[in-house]
Amino acid sequence: MIRKYRIGTPFETEAVVLSIKEETGEIPYLDRNETTGMLVCPLKKEDIVYGLGQNIRGINKRGFVYESNCSDDPLHTEGKRSLYGAHNFFVVDSDEKFGVFLDYPGKAVFDIGFTKTDLLTISTEDENYDLYLIDGASVTQIVKQFRELIGRSYVAPMWAFGYGQSRWSYNDEKEVREVVENFRNNKIGLDAVYLDIDYMERYKDFTVNRETFPDLAGLAKELKEKGVRLVPIIDAGVKIEEGYDVYEEGVAKDYFCKDEDGNNFTVGVWPGKVYLPDFLNKEAREWFGEKYSFLLEQGIEGFWNDMNEPALFYSEKNLDHVFARLDELRKKNLDIHSYFEMMDLVKGISNNEEDYRSFYHNVNGKKIRHDKIHNLYGYNMTRAAGEAFERLMPDKRILMFSRSSYIGMHRYSGIWTGDNQSWWSHLLLNLKMLPSLNMCGFLFIGADIGGFGDNTSQDLLLRWLSLGVFTPLMRNHSALGTRRQEPYCFDDTDAFRRLIGIRYALLPYIYSEYMKAVLRNEMMFLPLAFVYTEDKRVKEIEDQLLVGDSIMIAPVYTQNATGRYVYLPEEMKLIRMHSAGEWEEEILPAGDHYISVELDEIVFFIRKGKLLPLAKEADCVDHMESQLTYLDFADKKAEYELYRDDGFSKDYDKETNWQKIVVEK
Amino acid sequence: MIRKYRIGTPFETEAVVLSIKEETGEIPYLDRNETTGMLVCPLKKEDIVYGLGQNIRGINKRGFVYESNCSDDPLHTEGKRSLYGAHNFFVVDSDEKFGVFLDYPGKAVFDIGFTKTDLLTISTEDENYDLYLIDGASVTQIVKQFRELIGRSYVAPMWAFGYGQSRWSYNDEKEVREVVENFRNNKIGLDAVYLDIDYMERYKDFTVNRETFPDLAGLAKELKEKGVRLVPIIDAGVKIEEGYDVYEEGVAKDYFCKDEDGNNFTVGVWPGKVYLPDFLNKEAREWFGEKYSFLLEQGIEGFWNDMNEPALFYSEKNLDHVFARLDELRKKNLDIHSYFEMMDLVKGISNNEEDYRSFYHNVNGKKIRHDKIHNLYGYNMTRAAGEAFERLMPDKRILMFSRSSYIGMHRYSGIWTGDNQSWWSHLLLNLKMLPSLNMCGFLFIGADIGGFGDNTSQDLLLRWLSLGVFTPLMRNHSALGTRRQEPYCFDDTDAFRRLIGIRYALLPYIYSEYMKAVLRNEMMFLPLAFVYTEDKRVKEIEDQLLVGDSIMIAPVYTQNATGRYVYLPEEMKLIRMHSAGEWEEEILPAGDHYISVELDEIVFFIRKGKLLPLAKEADCVDHMESQLTYLDFADKKAEYELYRDDGFSKDYDKETNWQKIVVEK
Repeated sequence: MIRKYRIGTPFETEAVVLSIKEETGEIPYLDRNETTGMLVCPLKKEDIVYGLGQNIRGINKRGFVYESNCSDDPLHTEGKRSLYGAHNFFVVDSDEKFGVFLDYPGKAVFDIGFTKTDLLTISTEDENYDLYLIDGASVTQIVKQFRELIGRSYVAPMWAFGYGQSRWSYNDEKEVREVVENFRNNKIGLDAVYLDIDYMERYKDFTVNRETFPDLAGLAKELKEKGVRLVPIIDAGVKIEEGYDVYEEGVAKDYFCKDEDGNNFTVGVWPGKVYLPDFLNKEAREWFGEKYSFLLEQGIEGFWNDMNEPALFYSEKNLDHVFARLDELRKKNLDIHSYFEMMDLVKGISNNEEDYRSFYHNVNGKKIRHDKIHNLYGYNMTRAAGEAFERLMPDKRILMFSRSSYIGMHRYSGIWTGDNQSWWSHLLLNLKMLPSLNMCGFLFIGADIGGFGDNTSQDLLLRWLSLGVFTPLMRNHSALGTRRQEPYCFDDTDAFRRLIGIRYALLPYIYSEYMKAVLRNEMMFLPLAFVYTEDKRVKEIEDQLLVGDSIMIAPVYTQNATGRYVYLPEEMKLIRMHSAGEWEEEILPAGDHYISVELDEIVFFIRKGKLLPLAKEADCVDHMESQLTYLDFADKKAEYELYRDDGFSKDYDKETNWQKIVVEK
Repeated sequence: MIRKYRIGTPFETEAVVLSIKEETGEIPYLDRNETTGMLVCPLKKEDIVYGLGQNIRGINKRGFVYESNCSDDPLHTEGKRSLYGAHNFFVVDSDEKFGVFLDYPGKAVFDIGFTKTDLLTISTEDENYDLYLIDGASVTQIVKQFRELIGRSYVAPMWAFGYGQSRWSYNDEKEVREVVENFRNNKIGLDAVYLDIDYMERYKDFTVNRETFPDLAGLAKELKEKGVRLVPIIDAGVKIEEGYDVYEEGVAKDYFCKDEDGNNFTVGVWPGKVYLPDFLNKEAREWFGEKYSFLLEQGIEGFWNDMNEPALFYSEKNLDHVFARLDELRKKNLDIHSYFEMMDLVKGISNNEEDYRSFYHNVNGKKIRHDKIHNLYGYNMTRAAGEAFERLMPDKRILMFSRSSYIGMHRYSGIWTGDNQSWWSHLLLNLKMLPSLNMCGFLFIGADIGGFGDNTSQDLLLRWLSLGVFTPLMRNHSALGTRRQEPYCFDDTDAFRRLIGIRYALLPYIYSEYMKAVLRNEMMFLPLAFVYTEDKRVKEIEDQLLVGDSIMIAPVYTQNATGRYVYLPEEMKLIRMHSAGEWEEEILPAGDHYISVELDEIVFFIRKGKLLPLAKEADCVDHMESQLTYLDFADKKAEYELYRDDGFSKDYDKETNWQKIVVEK
């Protein structure tokens, strides 16, 4: 059951799609402290808290403080409280189980047994929010209700489930062609090459640098014939430049965010000074969305929306202040106080909280200060595009994923989990985030495989791919200045070829399970505890997941390890895949196992009575054959519901997309 | 066998104490590339590389690049190549086993199978070094030879093995007294309170702020009567301030580092502008060392030497350059290029490599540029103190540990592993660093328990203490602005009381094993693979250690976990300690186990035929009773060599310090 409580006068976030009657009585499960305004809930020692979407730390969120405050911060260390998204839904798994969705677009703080080990508290900047309380007999049942509340998740085209190669940046069409050729020559699967910021002319949205990409449409066409799509990036800010149509139109139509005095608010990002489109303004949203047609018309079928927290390198106003203060500081004998003031001052130029309180949106004629709705900015940028695609290409799926997000955006796009690092701990973090993102409606998801910042190593990339073969978005991306991390840049190209080949073999399964999760409001990635509810041991397993209905994964995430412990909650069949067409099978009893896993193989486990379809290897999704084989763990019988469609149109609900596979022995 | 090769004309680091004849033939194991000057060694797939002392990543160092380049960097993430120490000794565990010690005080780079998975390379800034190659039948035998080569490790007084409480900072004597009272009132063991930089007058070494600490000698005496010592910090830089004796003497005697033109080189640290004592100059070293008597005479018996990489907030010269460039940049439309230039410029003010190339030492009349001997600076600061203590108090042990170090410094002091963070990953990193530090001679070691930076949580601190009870230095330390982390600041004070109580019970064992490692050139913390050499499974175990001869530890280092996997290479007896006087025992067979470990208990494993002495709980080392009980895993017989001495004098080699304990059943 879902109950809704309205506190104060909330901003309409459009996160939910169901209309729920407001309750007036006492809020169950949570106490609202009249003095502090905090929502408080006692926690018993064994209680587990799941959720909060994109965040650091564990699957069980206990023992830390999380903030919903969309942040452009590439250093996802254990001490960070916010990443790029704001996903205010969690479930408390206690004697009674209940879900909480705080529909509030400002900064919210969730202290989950950190300050006091036995207390969960929620604080908001002001008391204007809708609160949804959901009960149910199980965590999955609560999640399902929540997912119905927030509406069906975005569906990506099938080609977007192929392997994607990215880099900040492939600088010209020659380099893009070289990448594609390297993949094809090495027989490594490839479906997409991503274009980072440098494809644009001076980092201006909806432009192409004609020197480096003289014929983007031609390039897109040429590559598509090889089964490869180009996926360009779009940033939130619009460069201030006379003669630049997007800038001039935005100014003329008054579609940019304003400062207190009603002037367009100037901030700095990649191109230098920009204005921020007012994505909270419906007309501005329509206008910006239409701009994507510039690229759609050149044959582009996918986009990634970036810098939409919004990331601010600086604001013009604060920069002046900082330089003035630096002028004073430079005269001093810089000591413990003044030196750190100086360093903090400069560090604080970017993504400055004061800046977020200094500009305004026009929402149906009402002036709303940005910080009040900060967490909706990325959502509405992406929604602008998503709604435009519906108008411009109603029958075709367009790939889109965003960096910043709020619940509701899941209806328009996927997300990638932002600027991670080439760290082993971020491989594990990638795994841990998958279920909580699913809980919040984000199904087309993936991390930058191999790590964005810092230098990767062959073993890290191989291990990360071994998780990445299971995530809907499987993209290898890395930053300017770091070691090249295309798979053919390492010693053992063959290992990469085989692992990526396995992705294509698994694709019918990945796609089916993804579509089931979309169409049935279910999760594709589940903690073991969500399914094996009676098994106490699984409650703290945070490095194994169920992927869909048939399999369990347990990737290796430790450098120099050639194996790991795996707990089997029931008898399962281990599959050791050496390549798309070669594998070994072994039935293992329930219990603890130490499983060897070489760098160049993928190990997973089929649940009893389940099976999984397997395709033949292909160099891209377009070239995949429809014929399937089946891997099963049928004692007597194994069943599977296979979902297949054309992969690009939107007729998801057709009966004929479903096929039941039964193996009997 | 140890072989020595001299390349070029090395600087005399005084790392080694044995005189080894130089070989002239070909260097074994390593190829010296004539073009690049690199030392190269092929690695087979199964080879393991151990060592490199204080560093990030695993016990097996393969798969990353490490730099010896003492660095003041508090963010010990996976991508960092240098921490505070430079410990150029490693062992390759291949079909043939060999150790390598690169005695070179400049920056050295060890690429251990990162760039090419099957290659280890060593690069140096110039080719002037001594290279020691050590072979032996086992890793421990190689380590023992190396430790003989570098001389006996420093011995700390026994009180320093008690629990220490630190904070940046306890600001006045009232606060110090409150801390001590809180410990005593809560019956939590305590042997030392650490004074961070604020006890000084304006951050000047060898001064005391008389407003906040009007009578340091009186306070030291008062606390010592309660069994508690005060341990003040000493920084490397000397404040430029007219009338400050240390500054004026140093200038008069010409004991500071010089710029190119022979003027004293000005850098900024805590007090603002300082000069750097030239610790490479023997006379300056003697002079600075004598200064410690200012505190020794006030009853102080221990010190920690900090900021001695040396940490530079800025140099006067570079700061001028940065401000000039900022003046140019502020006129620009700050974009992707100029914005990042500005941020990098300001970030690069501290610990700037160019600054390290801009000042000079006077070594026996020779002008030596700092970067050539950078890694010796902290070593020689601490040696200055250590040599002074020998002169000033020849019969008494003084506690000392340093942040920066080079091999050789281990003869004068211990180290703490610097400014870690309140991260679970740093608890595991703490464990992984212990054996490699032991290999390099550092035996009095410990990390900031609970984490220095960021905010700790009760569970993290409890789990960290569960490792810390085994480390010679057991100190809880935290940074300004972070959550208080004294044990009585959390919900479950009783759990802290019991865990710290267990430390005192274990102390006779910890101390005995430490002294054995000192006196016999052995390791106190060993990877399982060093002992169970025939067991293939232990080769990749990086979260369990042998501590001394009798026990194995396997701490929990994952949040919200109530247990963990443990591999027993042989039958062992599990000890589950609830407090100093309460425990359960259980014999477990060899193999894999999932062991439950509550937050408020300490679990370890006694090896077969071994025993361990256990003392009664005490509130400090001075109050410990001499009576011992024994925990054993005697099938038929268990033996132990117990080392005991008075804990403060230096007659370590007395026969009567040893006692043999035998239990027969």
